[in-house]
Amino acid sequence: MQEYDAGRYDVAVVGAGHAGIEAGLASARLGCSTCVFTINMDWVGNMPCNPSIGGTAKGHLVREIDALGGEMGKAADACFLQSRMLNRGKGPAVHSLRAQIDRREYAGWMKHRLETTPNLDLKQAELIDLRRLDDGNWQVITRLGAVYTCRAVIIATGTFLGGRIFVGEASWEGGPDGMFPAKELSVALKRLGVSLRRFKTGTPARVHRASVDLDQMEAQPGEDPVVPFSFETEHPGPNRVLCHITWTNEQTKQVILDNLHRSPLYGGKIEGIGPRYCPSIEDKIVRFAGKPRHQIFVEPCGLNTEELYLQGMSSSLPEEVQLKFLRTVKGLEHVKIMRTAYAIEYDCVDPLQLRPTLEFLDFPGLYGAGQFNGSSGYEEAAAQGLVAGVNAALKLQGRPPMVLDRASSYIGTLIDDLVTKGCSDPYRMMTSRSEYRLVLRQDNADQRLTPVGRQVGLISDARWQRFQEKQARREQELKRIRSTVIPPTKKVNDLLVSHETSPLVTGVHLDDLLKRPQLNYEVLKPVDTTRPDDLPLDVQELCQVEVKYEGYIRRQQSQIDEMRRLECKLFPEDMDYTAIAGLRLEAQEKLGKIRPRSVGQASRISGVSPADISVLLIWLEQHSRA
Amino acid sequence: MQEYDAGRYDVAVVGAGHAGIEAGLASARLGCSTCVFTINMDWVGNMPCNPSIGGTAKGHLVREIDALGGEMGKAADACFLQSRMLNRGKGPAVHSLRAQIDRREYAGWMKHRLETTPNLDLKQAELIDLRRLDDGNWQVITRLGAVYTCRAVIIATGTFLGGRIFVGEASWEGGPDGMFPAKELSVALKRLGVSLRRFKTGTPARVHRASVDLDQMEAQPGEDPVVPFSFETEHPGPNRVLCHITWTNEQTKQVILDNLHRSPLYGGKIEGIGPRYCPSIEDKIVRFAGKPRHQIFVEPCGLNTEELYLQGMSSSLPEEVQLKFLRTVKGLEHVKIMRTAYAIEYDCVDPLQLRPTLEFLDFPGLYGAGQFNGSSGYEEAAAQGLVAGVNAALKLQGRPPMVLDRASSYIGTLIDDLVTKGCSDPYRMMTSRSEYRLVLRQDNADQRLTPVGRQVGLISDARWQRFQEKQARREQELKRIRSTVIPPTKKVNDLLVSHETSPLVTGVHLDDLLKRPQLNYEVLKPVDTTRPDDLPLDVQELCQVEVKYEGYIRRQQSQIDEMRRLECKLFPEDMDYTAIAGLRLEAQEKLGKIRPRSVGQASRISGVSPADISVLLIWLEQHSRA
Repeated sequence: MQEYDAGRYDVAVVGAGHAGIEAGLASARLGCSTCVFTINMDWVGNMPCNPSIGGTAKGHLVREIDALGGEMGKAADACFLQSRMLNRGKGPAVHSLRAQIDRREYAGWMKHRLETTPNLDLKQAELIDLRRLDDGNWQVITRLGAVYTCRAVIIATGTFLGGRIFVGEASWEGGPDGMFPAKELSVALKRLGVSLRRFKTGTPARVHRASVDLDQMEAQPGEDPVVPFSFETEHPGPNRVLCHITWTNEQTKQVILDNLHRSPLYGGKIEGIGPRYCPSIEDKIVRFAGKPRHQIFVEPCGLNTEELYLQGMSSSLPEEVQLKFLRTVKGLEHVKIMRTAYAIEYDCVDPLQLRPTLEFLDFPGLYGAGQFNGSSGYEEAAAQGLVAGVNAALKLQGRPPMVLDRASSYIGTLIDDLVTKGCSDPYRMMTSRSEYRLVLRQDNADQRLTPVGRQVGLISDARWQRFQEKQARREQELKRIRSTVIPPTKKVNDLLVSHETSPLVTGVHLDDLLKRPQLNYEVLKPVDTTRPDDLPLDVQELCQVEVKYEGYIRRQQSQIDEMRRLECKLFPEDMDYTAIAGLRLEAQEKLGKIRPRSVGQASRISGVSPADISVLLIWLEQHSRA
Repeated sequence: MQEYDAGRYDVAVVGAGHAGIEAGLASARLGCSTCVFTINMDWVGNMPCNPSIGGTAKGHLVREIDALGGEMGKAADACFLQSRMLNRGKGPAVHSLRAQIDRREYAGWMKHRLETTPNLDLKQAELIDLRRLDDGNWQVITRLGAVYTCRAVIIATGTFLGGRIFVGEASWEGGPDGMFPAKELSVALKRLGVSLRRFKTGTPARVHRASVDLDQMEAQPGEDPVVPFSFETEHPGPNRVLCHITWTNEQTKQVILDNLHRSPLYGGKIEGIGPRYCPSIEDKIVRFAGKPRHQIFVEPCGLNTEELYLQGMSSSLPEEVQLKFLRTVKGLEHVKIMRTAYAIEYDCVDPLQLRPTLEFLDFPGLYGAGQFNGSSGYEEAAAQGLVAGVNAALKLQGRPPMVLDRASSYIGTLIDDLVTKGCSDPYRMMTSRSEYRLVLRQDNADQRLTPVGRQVGLISDARWQRFQEKQARREQELKRIRSTVIPPTKKVNDLLVSHETSPLVTGVHLDDLLKRPQLNYEVLKPVDTTRPDDLPLDVQELCQVEVKYEGYIRRQQSQIDEMRRLECKLFPEDMDYTAIAGLRLEAQEKLGKIRPRSVGQASRISGVSPADISVLLIWLEQHSRA
């Protein structure tokens, strides 16, 4: 192939999925000339698996992405079909937004957003090579011989890199949704010295609505009023579709067990490691052998299509077996498959090779994001894309990096987990992964992160002003709540008694009443006479949670302060752990491999003991004195 | 691959492009259980080349498809961006509708139409084998081992069959728009005994709107009021975009000539034969060496995308050369390519292997449609798809075939050309291909074909009633026009003189006035006092053309009657031409190969002389007596 000089960009982004989109937008919005390369421009922001965004912990990620100035939340708000706040019955820490999305509309929307972003070029091209130049710059080379010279490269290849499809005995090289895989780029990365491994994921069949008896299933409507993902969406549209729920049964299980030998996974054909928390139905049948049934969510793929997605029924069994086991399910007795379920195996990296900025430790200027880093999920991908894009831009501009710590966000937790502990299967975000989840709520994502986004440069003046106004309203209201005294009148006591909580004898502060489990902000409205009429719902919710959980939050905050003490003790870039007396050998090895940014990060490395941390703290103190 | 019995259909359609869509819809609507297989369900009805439908002669095809009960016109009306009636300055025979289409919207619309059509299943699957059973049935086998048994199979593989992409020195196996090719089906067809050949086509680059200086170009607005394609569309939407025109120049030419050696076509890498009437820019530069410039239409690909299509600039030169020659063009000096132009080579058949029903002569139950038959163009493909789908269904139902003769339609002309004369390069419809073009107008497509569509079963009762009402209005108005006498009043004569035609001395019939070249229906309105107020525009146009061109039309009609005399002289199915005394050897060979349906078709075979036709007529007369 005859190569030619196709020009220069500050940042090249490889892939236009959820990671690549946020990476490209962030970099371009921060003023870096950016090119986003995609193997198929028709499916920018494709959802090759479930047509939905959010869900437990993932909804938090989307809100955080939005709070920092990312795009996913806005796109989801523009293209959603049905929205619900999950876990309303549980504590506020686990409230999570989840929306069904119109897949075709979303892809078109995101493509247009990329097309209309200044400093950003979107190009359909397969990259087949990646070269590091002596001057520290990079070159990416397309299949057509175009050589682009860049200062940074962000790899966001999703499941395309070395992609291989499996359905029963059939297997072929391919990307998701019938697209071409990126084969040669794997070779180029290995040649560079990046070590790759194989992960796999899968997706269920898409079936035709008319072949499904939805009346046999439990309907699941959206929730009104719709709460948007983005802090900037003022008027989200209405819910437009119903989802449905059904279950597998003993017969389903039997069909699967009878055909397990035909699974490429159990037959040993797939070497990649699949997502623990999003297993195929055959995995679930085998691993949870005692469970009598598994839930299936039946979800529309779009407003103008009859395709339904069967969440929970991912499979790589042969097509005929898929049809057979689906037809055992109530409401699916006559189901017709439009697209067959498949597993896809792909190349990705061990994220221990990365810094918290998502730059490779050994390859300055090279970043990874999304499934390429070993994660799973659109939201996890988008979060990493944003962080990689921001950090690539900040580095090029000589500015300090944006490193979000574990107490700041799920994004910080996600990335800290990846780069500090690594992952042995596709990493999925869960609220249980955070030790600070009462603080890391979806309702306060803007409080936590919009100031960071503003500092970085992703928050416009107008948005910043609105944010500050919201802050003022919040502080004003908290102050009012804490200073308002509710008198022991008959009206008040009748209300309290009617909510099965004890009446007042003397006047008490409103915040004390709010803390009673039986009461909430809404309930107290009739007796809260000084309450402003025009307080937005989100500010009300924020204040209520902050007041109600004040004690817990304060305790968590002190843990955070403690953690941050270690987090801001940074190691020098050229740290040589073998030279530190008193460090155990295992600690030396682990530290040398992961090269933590801070003592905090070091303390979370498996194999680094509290004694090692003491040694490091002492060394740092001496070092900073010297 | 372990095969399994995946069930039965009456008709299997291979491909969901413009041909496959019409084939599948027609077959399903006529009551046959139909499965449409597509390699990528996300791009049903894709427009891999220009985002437009219609144009000279092609617009006629769309109207004819619609008149017969096909879908293309309705989809175009639903998804158009800009519409114009071409050739308004010329005679009514060449008036042709052309519309820019939102490519993404169109694909979604068509997919949904297939999904919601009774008797039709849409499945994403690559077919890798095709078998003829001893009982006359067929089997199609997917890559996943699913075996579908069918009574008829329609191949509508477009450019997917054995697809190979070329861009300069680069070349790989691929379908259009980054999709997978259908490779193994070629092998299966050859194994069956179908002889395949290679054709090629190509597409220009898609470029970013912001990189184009549209102000430097000539704007081309749509035409108001919008005339819809479909006779059923009552209220077409408004024009929503502007197109633009620019030109190549001497510098463009020089860049191309300097780099011709890097063209895969001129370098001998492409063996396929390209479309004569839709050549690449390098072809145009070479073939029309004296031409100082070539026109470029700059057309939006959709409402929500910044991609622009550069009609006229199809190329398979290397990407760097493409960029270089595009940048010589006024307004494209800083153009950025989003998708590179490419040529695609694919397998297709010599259509002489087909009957006028598009069934293979040698393979009962196997049909071909679209580019697979050697044509080019979405409209040509859709027309054949409709004919193949209808005929497959009619045959399965034991009903007589639908064979449209050359005087009935451009569709009939297209198919007669293909199956009688064959084609040595991708066949494109042009008005000059018809000897009856004054009769085959776009305005009377329903008059010509809706009765056929009704008889076949594709026209609903409601539509048929509306059609009959339109017919009645037309006949009433024609009668009125022919019986109305315009008196030689001052008002009349002033009007005539003001339009530079001689005043009346005595009263004349309105139709005689209408025939004057200076006058038309609109102009005569002030003096045509008995004219009904509520006559629809299309009926007005129809009547005007029929009156104005009455003499020419009558002459053409007598030619048609003559032609049809031979067209209804049908040969027996088992005709043995070698046994007919007096037929020249060449005629025997040609007739034996093409196996014409009628004496009319035989008379158009190259190598069959008028003397041979006389022999055949005599033989038929004797045969029918015997």
